[in-house]
Amino acid sequence: MTSAEFERLRVVLVNTRNPLNIGASARAMSNFGFSNLRVVSPYEPGFREAKSAVGAANLLKNAEKYDSVAEAVADCTLVVATTAARRRNLQHEVKRLEEGARLVRRRLKSGRVAILFGSEKSGLSNEEMSHADWLMRIPTSPQNFSMNLGQAVAVCLYEIIRDSKAPRVRDKVARASAGEVERITAMLLDALHASGYVGRRRVADIDERIRRLVKRLHLSARDTVLWLGILNQIRWKLRAGGAAADESEN
Amino acid sequence: MTSAEFERLRVVLVNTRNPLNIGASARAMSNFGFSNLRVVSPYEPGFREAKSAVGAANLLKNAEKYDSVAEAVADCTLVVATTAARRRNLQHEVKRLEEGARLVRRRLKSGRVAILFGSEKSGLSNEEMSHADWLMRIPTSPQNFSMNLGQAVAVCLYEIIRDSKAPRVRDKVARASAGEVERITAMLLDALHASGYVGRRRVADIDERIRRLVKRLHLSARDTVLWLGILNQIRWKLRAGGAAADESEN
Repeated sequence: MTSAEFERLRVVLVNTRNPLNIGASARAMSNFGFSNLRVVSPYEPGFREAKSAVGAANLLKNAEKYDSVAEAVADCTLVVATTAARRRNLQHEVKRLEEGARLVRRRLKSGRVAILFGSEKSGLSNEEMSHADWLMRIPTSPQNFSMNLGQAVAVCLYEIIRDSKAPRVRDKVARASAGEVERITAMLLDALHASGYVGRRRVADIDERIRRLVKRLHLSARDTVLWLGILNQIRWKLRAGGAAADESEN
Repeated sequence: MTSAEFERLRVVLVNTRNPLNIGASARAMSNFGFSNLRVVSPYEPGFREAKSAVGAANLLKNAEKYDSVAEAVADCTLVVATTAARRRNLQHEVKRLEEGARLVRRRLKSGRVAILFGSEKSGLSNEEMSHADWLMRIPTSPQNFSMNLGQAVAVCLYEIIRDSKAPRVRDKVARASAGEVERITAMLLDALHASGYVGRRRVADIDERIRRLVKRLHLSARDTVLWLGILNQIRWKLRAGGAAADESEN
Protein backbone atom coordinates (compact mmCIF):
# COMPACT_ATOMS: atom_id res chain seq x y z
CA MET A 1 0.00 0.00 0.00
CA THR A 2 1.17 3.55 -0.68
CA SER A 3 1.40 6.20 2.02
CA ALA A 4 -1.60 7.95 0.44
CA GLU A 5 -3.58 4.75 0.94
CA PHE A 6 -2.57 4.49 4.61
CA GLU A 7 -3.59 8.14 4.98
CA ARG A 8 -7.10 7.47 3.59
CA LEU A 9 -8.10 5.04 6.33
CA ARG A 10 -10.01 6.30 9.39
CA VAL A 11 -10.37 4.17 12.49
CA VAL A 12 -13.57 5.32 14.21
CA LEU A 13 -14.12 4.34 17.86
CA VAL A 14 -17.74 4.80 18.90
CA ASN A 15 -18.77 5.28 22.55
CA THR A 16 -15.57 3.76 23.87
CA ARG A 17 -15.79 3.46 27.66
CA ASN A 18 -12.23 2.79 28.75
CA PRO A 19 -9.57 5.29 27.63
CA LEU A 20 -6.99 2.48 27.91
CA ASN A 21 -8.74 0.84 24.97
CA ILE A 22 -8.45 4.05 22.94
CA GLY A 23 -4.75 4.03 23.79
CA ALA A 24 -4.37 0.38 22.80
CA SER A 25 -6.18 1.04 19.52
CA ALA A 26 -3.89 4.00 18.82
CA ARG A 27 -0.84 1.84 19.50
CA ALA A 28 -2.04 -0.84 17.06
CA MET A 29 -2.69 1.84 14.41
CA SER A 30 0.82 3.14 14.88
CA ASN A 31 2.25 -0.41 14.73
CA PHE A 32 0.63 -0.95 11.34
CA GLY A 33 1.32 2.50 9.89
CA PHE A 34 -2.06 4.19 10.17
CA SER A 35 -2.54 7.65 11.66
CA ASN A 36 -6.14 8.88 11.42
CA LEU A 37 -8.10 8.15 14.57
CA ARG A 38 -11.61 9.47 15.16
CA VAL A 39 -13.62 9.06 18.34
CA VAL A 40 -17.37 9.48 18.65
CA SER A 41 -18.64 10.42 22.13
CA PRO A 42 -15.97 8.72 24.24
CA TYR A 43 -17.09 8.23 27.84
CA GLU A 44 -13.95 9.82 29.20
CA PRO A 45 -13.15 13.38 28.06
CA GLY A 46 -9.49 12.81 28.92
CA PHE A 47 -9.06 10.13 26.29
CA ARG A 48 -6.02 11.86 24.75
CA GLU A 49 -4.01 11.00 27.84
CA ALA A 50 -4.64 7.28 27.43
CA LYS A 51 -1.68 5.52 28.95
CA SER A 52 -0.99 2.41 26.92
CA ALA A 53 -0.37 4.23 23.65
CA VAL A 54 3.35 3.39 23.47
CA GLY A 55 4.78 5.23 20.47
CA ALA A 56 1.38 6.68 19.52
CA ALA A 57 1.25 9.92 21.55
CA ASN A 58 1.08 12.15 18.47
CA LEU A 59 -1.57 10.01 16.88
CA LEU A 60 -3.72 10.37 20.02
CA LYS A 61 -3.08 14.10 20.20
CA ASN A 62 -4.32 14.50 16.64
CA ALA A 63 -7.38 12.28 17.13
CA GLU A 64 -10.58 13.98 16.00
CA LYS A 65 -13.64 14.01 18.22
CA TYR A 66 -17.18 13.86 16.83
CA ASP A 67 -20.66 13.86 18.32
CA SER A 68 -22.20 11.42 15.87
CA VAL A 69 -21.23 8.57 13.56
CA ALA A 70 -22.75 10.48 10.61
CA GLU A 71 -20.28 13.36 11.10
CA ALA A 72 -17.33 11.05 11.72
CA VAL A 73 -17.79 9.21 8.42
CA ALA A 74 -19.07 12.06 6.24
CA ASP A 75 -15.93 12.30 4.08
CA CYS A 76 -15.63 8.54 3.47
CA THR A 77 -16.82 6.66 0.38
CA LEU A 78 -16.86 3.29 2.14
CA VAL A 79 -18.01 2.75 5.73
CA VAL A 80 -17.46 -0.64 7.35
CA ALA A 81 -18.80 -1.60 10.77
CA THR A 82 -17.11 -4.34 12.76
CA THR A 83 -19.23 -6.89 14.56
CA ALA A 84 -18.59 -9.95 16.70
CA ALA A 85 -21.83 -11.67 15.78
CA ARG A 86 -22.07 -14.07 12.91
CA ARG A 87 -25.48 -12.88 11.85
CA ARG A 88 -26.40 -9.72 13.65
CA ASN A 89 -29.33 -8.81 11.53
CA LEU A 90 -30.57 -9.15 8.00
CA GLN A 91 -30.39 -5.46 7.18
CA HIS A 92 -26.67 -5.74 6.57
CA GLU A 93 -24.45 -8.07 4.69
CA VAL A 94 -21.75 -9.62 6.94
CA LYS A 95 -18.36 -10.32 5.36
CA ARG A 96 -15.54 -12.23 7.01
CA LEU A 97 -12.48 -10.11 7.75
CA GLU A 98 -10.40 -11.82 5.06
CA GLU A 99 -12.81 -10.73 2.33
CA GLY A 100 -13.75 -7.41 3.90
CA ALA A 101 -10.13 -6.26 4.23
CA ARG A 102 -9.57 -7.04 0.57
CA LEU A 103 -12.45 -4.72 -0.37
CA VAL A 104 -11.14 -2.04 2.03
CA ARG A 105 -7.69 -2.19 0.40
CA ARG A 106 -9.24 -1.90 -3.04
CA ARG A 107 -11.29 1.16 -2.06
CA LEU A 108 -8.30 2.84 -0.41
CA LYS A 109 -6.68 3.11 -3.84
CA SER A 110 -9.08 5.91 -4.67
CA GLY A 111 -11.25 6.89 -1.69
CA ARG A 112 -11.42 7.30 2.06
CA VAL A 113 -12.61 4.39 4.17
CA ALA A 114 -13.95 4.40 7.75
CA ILE A 115 -13.88 1.33 9.97
CA LEU A 116 -16.21 1.57 12.94
CA PHE A 117 -15.63 -0.16 16.28
CA GLY A 118 -18.38 -0.12 18.90
CA SER A 119 -18.24 0.16 22.67
CA GLU A 120 -16.68 -2.59 24.78
CA LYS A 121 -20.01 -3.27 26.45
CA SER A 122 -22.52 -3.45 23.66
CA GLY A 123 -20.76 -2.99 20.34
CA LEU A 124 -22.46 -0.79 17.75
CA SER A 125 -26.17 0.01 17.94
CA ASN A 126 -28.42 -0.62 14.96
CA GLU A 127 -28.56 3.13 14.35
CA GLU A 128 -24.78 3.35 14.32
CA MET A 129 -24.52 0.34 12.02
CA SER A 130 -27.00 1.85 9.58
CA HIS A 131 -24.26 4.25 8.49
CA ALA A 132 -22.19 1.31 7.25
CA ASP A 133 -22.18 -0.18 3.77
CA TRP A 134 -21.63 -3.65 5.23
CA LEU A 135 -20.43 -5.40 8.38
CA MET A 136 -17.08 -7.07 8.88
CA ARG A 137 -16.63 -10.00 11.25
CA ILE A 138 -13.39 -11.32 12.74
CA PRO A 139 -13.66 -15.12 12.49
CA THR A 140 -13.66 -15.82 16.24
CA SER A 141 -14.80 -18.98 17.98
CA PRO A 142 -18.55 -19.32 18.67
CA GLN A 143 -17.62 -20.24 22.27
CA ASN A 144 -16.02 -16.84 22.90
CA PHE A 145 -16.64 -14.56 19.96
CA SER A 146 -16.31 -11.18 21.63
CA MET A 147 -12.83 -9.69 21.39
CA ASN A 148 -11.12 -7.03 23.46
CA LEU A 149 -11.37 -3.71 21.56
CA GLY A 150 -7.63 -3.07 21.23
CA GLN A 151 -7.04 -6.64 20.05
CA ALA A 152 -9.88 -6.40 17.50
CA VAL A 153 -8.40 -3.18 16.08
CA ALA A 154 -4.97 -4.83 15.87
CA VAL A 155 -6.30 -7.89 14.03
CA CYS A 156 -8.38 -5.84 11.56
CA LEU A 157 -5.50 -3.50 10.71
CA TYR A 158 -3.10 -6.42 10.41
CA GLU A 159 -5.37 -8.09 7.86
CA ILE A 160 -5.47 -4.84 5.86
CA ILE A 161 -1.68 -4.45 5.68
CA ARG A 162 -1.05 -8.19 5.41
CA ASP A 163 0.96 -9.17 2.36
CA SER A 164 -0.80 -12.04 0.67
CA LYS A 165 2.28 -12.67 -1.43
CA ALA A 166 4.62 -12.92 1.55
CA PRO A 167 4.08 -16.64 2.16
CA ARG A 168 5.62 -17.31 -1.22
CA VAL A 169 8.76 -15.37 -0.42
CA ARG A 170 11.59 -17.76 0.27
CA ASP A 171 13.97 -17.19 3.11
CA LYS A 172 17.04 -15.24 2.22
CA VAL A 173 19.56 -17.14 4.31
CA ALA A 174 22.38 -18.31 2.07
CA ARG A 175 22.48 -22.10 1.96
CA ALA A 176 25.48 -24.41 1.81
CA SER A 177 26.57 -25.30 -1.70
CA ALA A 178 26.60 -28.92 -2.82
CA GLY A 179 30.40 -28.78 -2.64
CA GLU A 180 30.29 -27.70 0.99
CA VAL A 181 27.76 -30.41 1.80
CA GLU A 182 30.16 -32.86 0.21
CA ARG A 183 33.12 -31.64 2.26
CA ILE A 184 31.10 -32.01 5.45
CA THR A 185 29.95 -35.47 4.38
CA ALA A 186 33.54 -36.52 3.72
CA MET A 187 34.78 -35.17 7.07
CA LEU A 188 31.90 -36.76 8.94
CA LEU A 189 32.53 -40.10 7.25
CA ASP A 190 36.18 -39.88 8.14
CA ALA A 191 35.23 -39.14 11.77
CA LEU A 192 32.79 -42.05 11.78
CA HIS A 193 35.51 -44.38 10.56
CA ALA A 194 38.06 -42.97 13.01
CA SER A 195 35.63 -43.30 15.91
CA GLY A 196 34.75 -46.86 15.09
CA TYR A 197 31.10 -45.98 14.42
CA VAL A 198 31.63 -47.46 10.97
CA GLY A 199 33.30 -50.77 11.55
CA ARG A 200 35.16 -53.10 9.28
CA ARG A 201 32.02 -54.88 8.12
CA ARG A 202 30.92 -51.58 6.63
CA VAL A 203 27.48 -51.04 5.25
CA ALA A 204 27.68 -50.95 1.47
CA ASP A 205 25.94 -47.64 0.98
CA ILE A 206 27.24 -45.82 4.06
CA ASP A 207 28.54 -42.90 1.98
CA GLU A 208 25.14 -42.22 0.44
CA ARG A 209 23.37 -42.61 3.77
CA ILE A 210 25.60 -40.04 5.42
CA ARG A 211 25.36 -37.67 2.46
CA ARG A 212 21.57 -37.74 2.64
CA LEU A 213 21.74 -37.24 6.41
CA VAL A 214 23.85 -34.12 5.95
CA LYS A 215 21.67 -32.79 3.15
CA ARG A 216 18.62 -33.08 5.38
CA LEU A 217 20.26 -30.61 7.80
CA HIS A 218 19.68 -27.83 5.22
CA LEU A 219 22.72 -26.04 6.58
CA SER A 220 23.20 -22.35 6.03
CA ALA A 221 26.46 -21.25 4.42
CA ARG A 222 27.37 -19.60 7.69
CA ASP A 223 26.82 -22.71 9.79
CA THR A 224 28.68 -24.83 7.28
CA VAL A 225 31.90 -23.02 8.13
CA LEU A 226 31.33 -23.76 11.81
CA TRP A 227 30.59 -27.43 11.18
CA LEU A 228 33.65 -27.87 9.00
CA GLY A 229 35.77 -26.48 11.83
CA ILE A 230 34.12 -28.68 14.44
CA LEU A 231 34.43 -31.85 12.36
CA ASN A 232 37.99 -31.08 11.41
CA GLN A 233 38.91 -30.72 15.07
CA ILE A 234 37.07 -33.89 16.10
CA ARG A 235 38.68 -35.82 13.26
CA TRP A 236 42.14 -34.58 14.21
CA LYS A 237 41.61 -35.54 17.85
CA LEU A 238 40.24 -38.94 16.93
CA ARG A 239 43.15 -39.66 14.63
CA ALA A 240 45.66 -38.35 17.17
CA GLY A 241 44.03 -40.27 20.03
CA GLY A 242 43.75 -43.31 17.81
CA ALA A 243 47.42 -43.09 16.93
CA ALA A 244 48.28 -42.77 20.65
CA ALA A 245 46.00 -45.68 21.47
CA ASP A 246 47.55 -47.73 18.69
CA GLU A 247 50.97 -46.91 20.08
CA SER A 248 50.01 -47.87 23.61
CA GLU A 249 48.66 -51.16 22.37
CA ASN A 250 52.04 -51.96 20.90
CA MET B 1 -8.02 -26.94 11.21
CA THR B 2 -9.21 -29.93 13.23
CA SER B 3 -9.75 -29.79 16.99
CA ALA B 4 -6.69 -32.05 17.41
CA GLU B 5 -4.65 -29.42 15.57
CA PHE B 6 -5.92 -26.61 17.82
CA GLU B 7 -5.04 -28.83 20.79
CA ARG B 8 -1.43 -29.25 19.61
CA LEU B 9 -0.54 -25.55 19.82
CA ARG B 10 1.07 -24.16 22.97
CA VAL B 11 1.28 -20.43 23.59
CA VAL B 12 4.29 -19.88 25.84
CA LEU B 13 4.61 -16.55 27.67
CA VAL B 14 8.12 -15.99 29.00
CA ASN B 15 8.87 -13.64 31.92
CA THR B 16 5.63 -11.73 31.48
CA ARG B 17 5.58 -8.80 33.88
CA ASN B 18 1.96 -7.66 33.88
CA PRO B 19 -0.70 -10.28 34.72
CA LEU B 20 -3.18 -8.22 32.68
CA ASN B 21 -1.17 -9.16 29.62
CA ILE B 22 -1.42 -12.84 30.52
CA GLY B 23 -5.18 -12.34 30.82
CA ALA B 24 -5.36 -10.56 27.44
CA SER B 25 -3.33 -13.33 25.82
CA ALA B 26 -5.66 -15.95 27.31
CA ARG B 27 -8.67 -14.07 25.97
CA ALA B 28 -7.21 -13.95 22.45
CA MET B 29 -6.45 -17.69 22.64
CA SER B 30 -10.04 -18.36 23.63
CA ASN B 31 -11.33 -16.08 20.85
CA PHE B 32 -9.44 -18.10 18.25
CA GLY B 33 -10.13 -21.55 19.70
CA PHE B 34 -6.83 -22.40 21.38
CA SER B 35 -6.58 -23.68 24.94
CA ASN B 36 -3.01 -24.59 25.95
CA LEU B 37 -1.27 -21.75 27.73
CA ARG B 38 2.13 -22.11 29.36
CA VAL B 39 3.92 -19.47 31.39
CA VAL B 40 7.61 -19.40 32.18
CA SER B 41 8.60 -17.50 35.35
CA PRO B 42 5.83 -14.89 35.35
CA TYR B 43 6.69 -11.92 37.57
CA GLU B 44 3.41 -12.14 39.41
CA PRO B 45 2.58 -15.43 41.15
CA GLY B 46 -1.13 -14.54 41.04
CA PHE B 47 -1.26 -14.63 37.26
CA ARG B 48 -4.24 -17.03 37.24
CA GLU B 49 -6.44 -14.24 38.57
CA ALA B 50 -5.65 -11.99 35.63
CA LYS B 51 -8.67 -9.76 35.18
CA SER B 52 -9.10 -9.10 31.48
CA ALA B 53 -9.53 -12.74 30.50
CA VAL B 54 -13.19 -12.41 29.50
CA GLY B 55 -14.45 -15.91 28.67
CA ALA B 56 -11.04 -17.47 29.34
CA ALA B 57 -11.17 -18.21 33.07
CA ASN B 58 -10.85 -21.98 32.58
CA LEU B 59 -8.01 -21.56 30.14
CA LEU B 60 -6.13 -19.48 32.74
CA LYS B 61 -6.90 -21.94 35.52
CA ASN B 62 -5.40 -24.75 33.44
CA ALA B 63 -2.32 -22.76 32.40
CA GLU B 64 0.90 -24.65 33.12
CA LYS B 65 3.77 -22.96 34.90
CA TYR B 66 7.41 -23.75 34.10
CA ASP B 67 10.76 -22.57 35.37
CA SER B 68 12.55 -22.60 32.03
CA VAL B 69 11.86 -22.34 28.32
CA ALA B 70 13.53 -25.74 27.80
CA GLU B 71 10.95 -27.45 30.05
CA ALA B 72 8.04 -25.51 28.55
CA VAL B 73 8.81 -26.61 24.99
CA ALA B 74 10.16 -30.11 25.66
CA ASP B 75 7.17 -31.94 24.12
CA CYS B 76 7.05 -29.81 20.95
CA THR B 77 8.52 -30.71 17.58
CA LEU B 78 8.55 -27.10 16.34
CA VAL B 79 9.43 -24.10 18.49
CA VAL B 80 8.87 -20.62 17.10
CA ALA B 81 9.99 -17.43 18.86
CA THR B 82 8.23 -14.17 18.12
CA THR B 83 10.29 -11.02 17.67
CA ALA B 84 9.58 -7.40 16.85
CA ALA B 85 12.95 -6.78 15.23
CA ARG B 86 13.49 -7.19 11.53
CA ARG B 87 16.94 -8.63 11.94
CA ARG B 88 17.62 -9.48 15.54
CA ASN B 89 20.66 -11.55 14.94
CA LEU B 90 22.16 -13.84 12.37
CA GLN B 91 21.92 -16.97 14.48
CA HIS B 92 18.27 -17.38 13.55
CA GLU B 93 16.27 -17.20 10.42
CA VAL B 94 13.47 -14.59 10.64
CA LYS B 95 10.23 -15.35 8.80
CA ARG B 96 7.36 -12.94 8.33
CA LEU B 97 4.18 -13.96 10.16
CA GLU B 98 2.35 -14.80 6.91
CA GLU B 99 4.91 -17.43 6.00
CA GLY B 100 5.64 -18.57 9.56
CA ALA B 101 1.97 -19.23 10.35
CA ARG B 102 1.71 -21.37 7.23
CA LEU B 103 4.58 -23.55 8.48
CA VAL B 104 3.01 -23.70 11.96
CA ARG B 105 -0.29 -24.89 10.48
CA ARG B 106 1.51 -27.53 8.46
CA ARG B 107 3.38 -28.85 11.50
CA LEU B 108 0.21 -28.92 13.62
CA LYS B 109 -1.15 -31.64 11.34
CA SER B 110 1.21 -34.10 12.98
CA GLY B 111 3.12 -32.53 15.89
CA ARG B 112 3.00 -30.11 18.78
CA VAL B 113 4.11 -26.53 18.20
CA ALA B 114 5.19 -23.92 20.77
CA ILE B 115 5.04 -20.19 20.05
CA LEU B 116 7.15 -18.13 22.44
CA PHE B 117 6.37 -14.54 23.44
CA GLY B 118 8.91 -12.59 25.48
CA SER B 119 8.49 -10.05 28.26
CA GLU B 120 6.88 -6.67 27.60
CA LYS B 121 10.09 -4.89 28.51
CA SER B 122 12.81 -6.71 26.65
CA GLY B 123 11.28 -9.49 24.58
CA LEU B 124 13.09 -12.82 24.50
CA SER B 125 16.75 -13.11 25.50
CA ASN B 126 19.24 -14.77 23.18
CA GLU B 127 19.30 -17.81 25.47
CA GLU B 128 15.50 -18.08 25.33
CA MET B 129 15.53 -17.67 21.54
CA SER B 130 18.14 -20.40 21.16
CA HIS B 131 15.40 -22.95 21.95
CA ALA B 132 13.53 -21.87 18.81
CA ASP B 133 13.83 -23.36 15.34
CA TRP B 134 13.29 -19.94 13.78
CA LEU B 135 11.91 -16.48 14.59
CA MET B 136 8.58 -15.08 13.49
CA ARG B 137 8.05 -11.36 12.94
CA ILE B 138 4.76 -9.50 12.77
CA PRO B 139 5.16 -7.04 9.87
CA THR B 140 4.92 -3.85 11.93
CA SER B 141 6.01 -0.38 10.91
CA PRO B 142 9.72 0.49 11.43
CA GLN B 143 8.53 3.70 13.17
CA ASN B 144 6.79 1.75 15.93
CA PHE B 145 7.55 -1.92 15.62
CA SER B 146 6.99 -3.05 19.20
CA MET B 147 3.49 -4.36 19.84
CA ASN B 148 1.55 -4.75 23.05
CA LEU B 149 1.82 -8.40 24.17
CA GLY B 150 -1.90 -9.21 24.12
CA GLN B 151 -2.27 -7.62 20.68
CA ALA B 152 0.73 -9.54 19.33
CA VAL B 153 -0.74 -12.83 20.58
CA ALA B 154 -4.09 -11.97 18.97
CA VAL B 155 -2.53 -11.14 15.60
CA CYS B 156 -0.33 -14.28 15.53
CA LEU B 157 -3.20 -16.60 16.43
CA TYR B 158 -5.50 -14.89 13.93
CA GLU B 159 -2.99 -15.50 11.15
CA ILE B 160 -2.83 -19.19 12.14
CA ILE B 161 -6.62 -19.70 12.03
CA ARG B 162 -7.10 -17.35 9.06
CA ASP B 163 -8.84 -18.95 6.13
CA SER B 164 -6.91 -18.11 2.99
CA LYS B 165 -9.82 -19.32 0.90
CA ALA B 166 -12.40 -17.10 2.64
CA PRO B 167 -11.87 -14.06 0.37
CA ARG B 168 -13.25 -16.08 -2.51
CA VAL B 169 -16.48 -16.90 -0.71
CA ARG B 170 -19.30 -14.86 -2.16
CA ASP B 171 -21.89 -13.24 0.03
CA LYS B 172 -24.96 -15.31 0.68
CA VAL B 173 -27.54 -12.55 0.57
CA ALA B 174 -30.27 -13.53 -1.90
CA ARG B 175 -30.32 -11.06 -4.78
CA ALA B 176 -33.30 -9.75 -6.71
CA SER B 177 -34.19 -11.79 -9.77
CA ALA B 178 -34.15 -10.20 -13.22
CA GLY B 179 -37.95 -10.33 -13.15
CA GLU B 180 -38.05 -8.32 -9.92
CA VAL B 181 -35.56 -5.82 -11.30
CA GLU B 182 -37.85 -5.46 -14.29
CA ARG B 183 -40.93 -4.85 -12.11
CA ILE B 184 -39.08 -2.15 -10.20
CA THR B 185 -37.86 -0.62 -13.44
CA ALA B 186 -41.40 -0.52 -14.80
CA MET B 187 -42.83 1.03 -11.63
CA LEU B 188 -40.04 3.59 -11.45
CA LEU B 189 -40.56 4.53 -15.11
CA ASP B 190 -44.25 4.91 -14.50
CA ALA B 191 -43.51 7.15 -11.50
CA LEU B 192 -41.06 9.20 -13.57
CA HIS B 193 -43.67 9.75 -16.23
CA ALA B 194 -46.36 10.55 -13.67
CA SER B 195 -44.07 12.99 -11.87
CA GLY B 196 -43.14 14.80 -15.04
CA TYR B 197 -39.46 13.83 -14.69
CA VAL B 198 -39.81 12.20 -18.08
CA GLY B 199 -41.51 14.74 -20.25
CA ARG B 200 -43.24 14.46 -23.59
CA ARG B 201 -40.01 14.88 -25.54
CA ARG B 202 -38.86 11.64 -24.01
CA VAL B 203 -35.34 10.40 -24.40
CA ALA B 204 -35.34 7.51 -26.86
CA ASP B 205 -33.57 5.02 -24.62
CA ILE B 206 -35.06 6.09 -21.27
CA ASP B 207 -36.26 2.55 -20.54
CA GLU B 208 -32.80 1.09 -20.93
CA ARG B 209 -31.21 3.90 -18.93
CA ILE B 210 -33.52 3.34 -16.02
CA ARG B 211 -33.15 -0.42 -16.18
CA ARG B 212 -29.36 -0.11 -15.96
CA LEU B 213 -29.75 2.39 -13.11
CA VAL B 214 -31.86 -0.12 -11.16
CA LYS B 215 -29.52 -3.01 -11.94
CA ARG B 216 -26.60 -1.04 -10.56
CA LEU B 217 -28.37 -0.95 -7.18
CA HIS B 218 -27.68 -4.72 -6.82
CA LEU B 219 -30.78 -4.99 -4.67
CA SER B 220 -31.24 -7.88 -2.29
CA ALA B 221 -34.42 -9.92 -2.68
CA ARG B 222 -35.51 -8.63 0.71
CA ASP B 223 -35.08 -4.96 -0.20
CA THR B 224 -36.79 -5.49 -3.51
CA VAL B 225 -40.07 -6.16 -1.73
CA LEU B 226 -39.67 -2.89 0.19
CA TRP B 227 -38.89 -0.90 -2.94
CA LEU B 228 -41.83 -2.35 -4.83
CA GLY B 229 -44.12 -1.23 -2.01
CA ILE B 230 -42.58 2.25 -1.88
CA LEU B 231 -42.77 2.77 -5.62
CA ASN B 232 -46.29 1.43 -5.82
CA GLN B 233 -47.39 3.90 -3.18
CA ILE B 234 -45.58 6.84 -4.80
CA ARG B 235 -47.04 5.91 -8.20
CA TRP B 236 -50.55 5.67 -6.77
CA LYS B 237 -50.20 9.05 -5.06
CA LEU B 238 -48.76 10.66 -8.20
CA ARG B 239 -51.54 9.30 -10.35
CA ALA B 240 -54.21 10.26 -7.81
CA GLY B 241 -52.69 13.76 -7.36
CA GLY B 242 -52.22 14.06 -11.11
CA ALA B 243 -55.87 13.17 -11.70
CA ALA B 244 -56.94 15.77 -9.15
CA ALA B 245 -54.59 18.33 -10.73
CA ASP B 246 -55.94 17.50 -14.16
CA GLU B 247 -59.45 17.97 -12.86
CA SER B 248 -58.64 21.30 -11.23
CA GLU B 249 -57.16 22.51 -14.51
CA ASN B 250 -60.48 21.96 -16.21
